[in-house]
Amino acid sequence: MSFARPSGRAPDQLRPVEIVRHFTRHAEGSVLVSFGDTRVLCTASVDNKAPAFLRGKGEGWVTAEYGMLPRATHSRSQREAASGRQGGRTLEIQRLIGRSLRACVDRKALGERTITLDCDVLQADGGTRTAAITGAYVALVDAVRRLQADGELDRDPIHGAVAAVSVGIYRGVPVLDLDYAEDAGCDTDMNVVMNDGGGFIELQGTAEGHAFRRDELDALLTLAGQGVAELIALQRRALAG
Amino acid sequence: MSFARPSGRAPDQLRPVEIVRHFTRHAEGSVLVSFGDTRVLCTASVDNKAPAFLRGKGEGWVTAEYGMLPRATHSRSQREAASGRQGGRTLEIQRLIGRSLRACVDRKALGERTITLDCDVLQADGGTRTAAITGAYVALVDAVRRLQADGELDRDPIHGAVAAVSVGIYRGVPVLDLDYAEDAGCDTDMNVVMNDGGGFIELQGTAEGHAFRRDELDALLTLAGQGVAELIALQRRALAG
Amino acid sequence: MSFARPSGRAPDQLRPVEIVRHFTRHAEGSVLVSFGDTRVLCTASVDNKAPAFLRGKGEGWVTAEYGMLPRATHSRSQREAASGRQGGRTLEIQRLIGRSLRACVDRKALGERTITLDCDVLQADGGTRTAAITGAYVALVDAVRRLQADGELDRDPIHGAVAAVSVGIYRGVPVLDLDYAEDAGCDTDMNVVMNDGGGFIELQGTAEGHAFRRDELDALLTLAGQGVAELIALQRRALAG
Amino acid sequence: MSFARPSGRAPDQLRPVEIVRHFTRHAEGSVLVSFGDTRVLCTASVDNKAPAFLRGKGEGWVTAEYGMLPRATHSRSQREAASGRQGGRTLEIQRLIGRSLRACVDRKALGERTITLDCDVLQADGGTRTAAITGAYVALVDAVRRLQADGELDRDPIHGAVAAVSVGIYRGVPVLDLDYAEDAGCDTDMNVVMNDGGGFIELQGTAEGHAFRRDELDALLTLAGQGVAELIALQRRALAG
Amino acid sequence: MSFARPSGRAPDQLRPVEIVRHFTRHAEGSVLVSFGDTRVLCTASVDNKAPAFLRGKGEGWVTAEYGMLPRATHSRSQREAASGRQGGRTLEIQRLIGRSLRACVDRKALGERTITLDCDVLQADGGTRTAAITGAYVALVDAVRRLQADGELDRDPIHGAVAAVSVGIYRGVPVLDLDYAEDAGCDTDMNVVMNDGGGFIELQGTAEGHAFRRDELDALLTLAGQGVAELIALQRRALAG
Amino acid sequence: MSFARPSGRAPDQLRPVEIVRHFTRHAEGSVLVSFGDTRVLCTASVDNKAPAFLRGKGEGWVTAEYGMLPRATHSRSQREAASGRQGGRTLEIQRLIGRSLRACVDRKALGERTITLDCDVLQADGGTRTAAITGAYVALVDAVRRLQADGELDRDPIHGAVAAVSVGIYRGVPVLDLDYAEDAGCDTDMNVVMNDGGGFIELQGTAEGHAFRRDELDALLTLAGQGVAELIALQRRALAG
Repeated sequence: MSFARPSGRAPDQLRPVEIVRHFTRHAEGSVLVSFGDTRVLCTASVDNKAPAFLRGKGEGWVTAEYGMLPRATHSRSQREAASGRQGGRTLEIQRLIGRSLRACVDRKALGERTITLDCDVLQADGGTRTAAITGAYVALVDAVRRLQADGELDRDPIHGAVAAVSVGIYRGVPVLDLDYAEDAGCDTDMNVVMNDGGGFIELQGTAEGHAFRRDELDALLTLAGQGVAELIALQRRALAG
Repeated sequence: MSFARPSGRAPDQLRPVEIVRHFTRHAEGSVLVSFGDTRVLCTASVDNKAPAFLRGKGEGWVTAEYGMLPRATHSRSQREAASGRQGGRTLEIQRLIGRSLRACVDRKALGERTITLDCDVLQADGGTRTAAITGAYVALVDAVRRLQADGELDRDPIHGAVAAVSVGIYRGVPVLDLDYAEDAGCDTDMNVVMNDGGGFIELQGTAEGHAFRRDELDALLTLAGQGVAELIALQRRALAG
Repeated sequence: MSFARPSGRAPDQLRPVEIVRHFTRHAEGSVLVSFGDTRVLCTASVDNKAPAFLRGKGEGWVTAEYGMLPRATHSRSQREAASGRQGGRTLEIQRLIGRSLRACVDRKALGERTITLDCDVLQADGGTRTAAITGAYVALVDAVRRLQADGELDRDPIHGAVAAVSVGIYRGVPVLDLDYAEDAGCDTDMNVVMNDGGGFIELQGTAEGHAFRRDELDALLTLAGQGVAELIALQRRALAG
Repeated sequence: MSFARPSGRAPDQLRPVEIVRHFTRHAEGSVLVSFGDTRVLCTASVDNKAPAFLRGKGEGWVTAEYGMLPRATHSRSQREAASGRQGGRTLEIQRLIGRSLRACVDRKALGERTITLDCDVLQADGGTRTAAITGAYVALVDAVRRLQADGELDRDPIHGAVAAVSVGIYRGVPVLDLDYAEDAGCDTDMNVVMNDGGGFIELQGTAEGHAFRRDELDALLTLAGQGVAELIALQRRALAG
Repeated sequence: MSFARPSGRAPDQLRPVEIVRHFTRHAEGSVLVSFGDTRVLCTASVDNKAPAFLRGKGEGWVTAEYGMLPRATHSRSQREAASGRQGGRTLEIQRLIGRSLRACVDRKALGERTITLDCDVLQADGGTRTAAITGAYVALVDAVRRLQADGELDRDPIHGAVAAVSVGIYRGVPVLDLDYAEDAGCDTDMNVVMNDGGGFIELQGTAEGHAFRRDELDALLTLAGQGVAELIALQRRALAG
Repeated sequence: MSFARPSGRAPDQLRPVEIVRHFTRHAEGSVLVSFGDTRVLCTASVDNKAPAFLRGKGEGWVTAEYGMLPRATHSRSQREAASGRQGGRTLEIQRLIGRSLRACVDRKALGERTITLDCDVLQADGGTRTAAITGAYVALVDAVRRLQADGELDRDPIHGAVAAVSVGIYRGVPVLDLDYAEDAGCDTDMNVVMNDGGGFIELQGTAEGHAFRRDELDALLTLAGQGVAELIALQRRALAG
């Protein structure tokens, strides 16, 4: 009855998702992903060298960097390049994106290459890290396809698909894909990264207000599974486009 | 039959846990916590000022910093003070410790104070962040008790208890409280922070090798619940000592 | 006869220019400006405080920051936030943008406010600083208009218009608005910032190959004057839109 | 009539210029240059290695660094070594000095060497960057002569001479070589780097107050040409000494 | 009569000294040294590479790093890793420890190896640098013994022993091994590093209040000689244990 | 017989010392001090504010900063402003200079002011820190005299004089005021700061080769006493000039 999400969405409803490939010209993969008003530019850059710690081992690496334009948010935040260090939140998110995407990459098949996924938030409205993972996957596939088209790879290093969504308990109700208004007001917030086999890759849950019970957790995981399945379908459609 | 943990422990068995209070003299709370060979010195320092962003709001703050002595590990790692920045792992862990302990603190009742929990790893053998959270809780209680003894607080700002443990899938079997040998070789690793009501405060799971299935996740969460319950009992015993 | 610009443009021809207002939601002014394949997102953020060095003097400040997404360029460049410092080129450009725009602002009329212009290059193809100045002017006007609409200002702090263009000698011929292919191969490169009265605000010329003669300089200045006049007309049209 | 420069100089008159070679012992070139009360110590250091980005290409590099002693100025400014970063003004100036001097160097003839020009301001009274360029040229020639004397070079890598001067509009009158009193009060300020053939190497003009008209610019460029010609004569005399 | 040290010790009496070897597991040498309430963990880490400046010269290096846990002191001090730089006091102390220990090492006999001595203060009560030197010597010997046991060394690179103690003038009386209460109140403070032959390795004296006379200096040096002799005897006993 | 210093000086002979006051114009005190080929520019800057930690206590502060121009030395060293941090040696020296000069200042009499002594080495040939202390004293007196002349001080905050010299054992012979050739080859090196009453303010001795015996130390202290007495006479003469 009385329950309503600020956006008017149903509890299990994603925001409108858009995945625009080839958004910029130079990168081997370049995707502008939108989860509602959250817009993240994800580029994949191929470097034909493995990072130093893997040199000579016959395998490659996939890594990520994350940034937020100073005025992507409601009020301007300081530019990290100007403050001289990336904050803890930035480092945490870029480590998460990197681990998530490495989960679908056969690094031997990639060979001694590094693919860097730069995820830069042009506009933020909650869920920037889940949008980034979802978009970066598409950019990664585009970059790998170009390597394949150039005859650089013996076999496809990508196995399966990876996408991410947030879930949370908002006013006592488990909801999918929180926007900023919900995120700021919710009790529990969880980011879930899964693959196309329904397996969990990363799970990061935080009780903002009260600790969450096992049954709440179960409901959230089920919602997340649905949401990721929809996102993976959207990735597929975009890649087929 | 063939399954054996490197340490010979049963799958649901914690390492020997030791909680030594008053390990150093100056701090308001000072605890040396051991989870097997992992040893973390946790101190709680009280500052009678709220941080700048809370000044004048009538509430306090609890925050954490984490460090690892350069030779706490098998091979020496560079001192972060010398390299000039705290790494992403350090920032991630100290943010986790801070959030976990704020979950059991009534910040209004604390008043305009800051309690800083410094968790410094003297020796590492896996699970340093879960040991840190478990030990820091005891240091926090000691610091608050001293404030109470000094008549500084109207009511107890601590509600309930908080402890943390890792769980993972090692050679296909869900196991509790991974040591370094298991951590390095396991497929899935999850850190679980819970309170004494069995509620979840933080959940951070990472699939290192293959993605984990929902039933594996369920088994891990159950194991973690048991482990945390044991740790909370040990905290209580130490605090009664 | 034989002279041809790589793009096929006439020597005195600008690239196609696009000025998209309201490109993102949160900023008081938000403009995506394109000079051909160079695309820069310019946002204007209003802060109702003067910077420390002007506090209490009854006047405001306009400043700029500049950044380049790591893969805005042909090959990926290191993220300045990760390297921990803004390079000399970045600092030089953002100082130039700030000075240029302050030239059309009556800082007393602005009152004790700071407007920060963030110019972030999404895609680079030469001329990013001139595109940034041209676009930032429009974002600045939008931000000031909003202040006026809110009744915050007694009189309009913007006097006139400011735009910028590059000129250079390419294969012996003075050309307007160099793209990357020309920039890399040209002998002399000059960035010219002018106002709508035909006055010079900034002039930065560099002889890459041989020093340039006075007559070459004269030809370049004339070209720049034409180009800026066209750009100011385009700014006006966009602001009227 | 009523026009007078604070120093009593004629509008087209340089300050007394002094060029003292061999001011310190260790550097391959060491020049103390004075433009009136502005005194800059310029040393040229030869390193028999090209910088990394030129290694193995058979050519050398000339680069510059600029600094200001903390109390070179009216009030003490913070030491950049203590603040942990070189400011934007410093980086801008040292990039300008480097580019200016590379304009008279045949880098193939120099061979795989790096010459670093350190320009440190002992006392500032306006025009430190133009004094630095003018003095650094002499230090560079001394360093190259020593290489020649040692039989290290096949041919002279220096072609022509480079010097720099500032010009500006002070109380409506175009003047040459601004000192601090004029610089602080002037409307327009331009730094001009030229060679001994009258060609322009760098041109950096800034309208501090009102934008400058084309005829003003023309007058300034003519003044600058005269000033640089005088400075180049003084460099020659010093090098002949 | 009326003279009394805050601790009740005789003027020439050391605090109780404890030297616990093998305090942590991973390091090649690991010593917890206590001078009264001052407790420092000293680890020696062997790296089978010489530092860059000695590569290929057939000799090794011994270096030290020093740190203080944030709450080793009466009030919490900022973590140097968080502030992003090691303070002047830290750098000064670690340079002193390194020089002191190199004084008893035959670097040719060590071969192309680096031994790093990490001295981390767990609890501070004055004299942390002298305790660190005294403990680090024992850790160094343990690390070298392990190399010898592994047949890695042809001959013993350690010649003699090194220890350190502070002396000072407290209320007009020369005293040995100052604790924090004395250190804060004393006029003159000297740190003396000596070897087992009674030779001086380092001497650092500072007059806090009035300058000290030659006869005072003589008395302090005599006291220091006695103190170091006792400490060297304690090191020997610990190493024999 | 066979003993000779590289410079031909007698063992107890200082290098030619020159103290030039008013070397630059802006600073309240500005002294170029030479100890032979070592030349240090020492400026004293007065700020009419106490540092934050003394605000409101009615006393002032004297502090020092030290720098070395990149090519003050035989081979060019990296500019500390460019590397982004002051090295340990720099911090150690500037702390020493500050402590030494505070030893002759009555900080109550100075009032809530800060005097900063910037000691910048233009040319180095050993003994830069002792030259810096000796010259900075003169700059400090000049700055204080100006405050007195302006009627800003009730009484003279300077009591006595402070100077510094190095001593060492060179080829077995105790010598005074080591130059670079001696410094590089000597066994023991001590910097001694004393006042005009013959009292010791700072003593920093380091055994480079073999540890030094008590009788050697005694001889060095006697030499230092003579040297400082001569330097204080030279300071007096300069200040009387």
